[in-house]
Amino acid sequence: MKPLSSLHHLIQALRRLPGVGPKSAQRIAYHMLQHDREGAVQLSSALSEAVATVRHCSRCNTFTESDVCETCRDEERDASLLCVTETPADQMMIEQTLTFKGYYFVLMGNLSPLNGIGPKEICFEKLIARATDGIVKEVILATSFNNEGEATAHYISEMLKARGLYVTRLARGVPVGAELEYVDIGTIARAFLDRRTT
Amino acid sequence: MKPLSSLHHLIQALRRLPGVGPKSAQRIAYHMLQHDREGAVQLSSALSEAVATVRHCSRCNTFTESDVCETCRDEERDASLLCVTETPADQMMIEQTLTFKGYYFVLMGNLSPLNGIGPKEICFEKLIARATDGIVKEVILATSFNNEGEATAHYISEMLKARGLYVTRLARGVPVGAELEYVDIGTIARAFLDRRTT
Repeated sequence: MKPLSSLHHLIQALRRLPGVGPKSAQRIAYHMLQHDREGAVQLSSALSEAVATVRHCSRCNTFTESDVCETCRDEERDASLLCVTETPADQMMIEQTLTFKGYYFVLMGNLSPLNGIGPKEICFEKLIARATDGIVKEVILATSFNNEGEATAHYISEMLKARGLYVTRLARGVPVGAELEYVDIGTIARAFLDRRTT
Repeated sequence: MKPLSSLHHLIQALRRLPGVGPKSAQRIAYHMLQHDREGAVQLSSALSEAVATVRHCSRCNTFTESDVCETCRDEERDASLLCVTETPADQMMIEQTLTFKGYYFVLMGNLSPLNGIGPKEICFEKLIARATDGIVKEVILATSFNNEGEATAHYISEMLKARGLYVTRLARGVPVGAELEYVDIGTIARAFLDRRTT
């Protein structure tokens, strides 16, 4: 019993999704064909539409459908502040806090030498060009606080400080609402070192 | 900051995949657009191709691209044996054992009254028509051994026995390679009741 070619192609294509293995790919394919053909058609056209229209903002590197994204076109923002994030999702989280009114630069990844991702794979040249436009005064590094994110922040920080920019990093410490008993000791140690007068 | 419409459509479409929530959908969308646009195009065409070509076999109800599937067209098989499975995946597992040389009927689901899936939603009429063709003598029920699968097997068994067919069920017992200590007691109890002379 040979598998059907179109079903086989679908299963192979689904396996390219991150986090989808052979069993899940098969389960998803059967589910879509048996119970949600409308959803399959919808996903098919959404994929080709997104591939055709989504590109990178020429200023901040995030996903956009025009040359410059909506955030970069917003002239009410403080042009002296530039926040560097790893992904558009991180950028959206920061926007939701309503505490930052500057512009962004989205790296679309982080340095990960083990996975072959060096400075060239991430748009560092574009970031330097953007940060040294003469208007930006402070660059706020909002990359993740895991190993790759910290390494990326360190690398960017060194590069931009050498070019005379004021570089800051989001505060590390105990999360809001946390009970000390359940916070990891690394975080508590950091919060001790970075303690502030009240 | 409003999300892009084409990106938003893609995320919404990905959420229809089974087991994909809002966070995963976003992660998959970003990944495909950033790192695997070729895969996205491939998935898009595989989906539309599968929706266009895959349908149900008129004899056994499994997925096929022609009117009658390859297995049903295989004339070397024993037409007196009909094995009932829930999914094409189950059917493929049985084929791989090389122990069964009859034909199949694929239910494409199981009875699940809690989810509104009754006999009408599963192709029971089609199964009865197939099983009572005058050639089939034994129907082997290979539905799952969970509650829904057992209920489905019971229902089919009653229906087909009333029509004079010989109906069997796959043996229940201790899995090959298992150590008794780690087998659940329900299975051990079943293996005791169904014990066989050696």
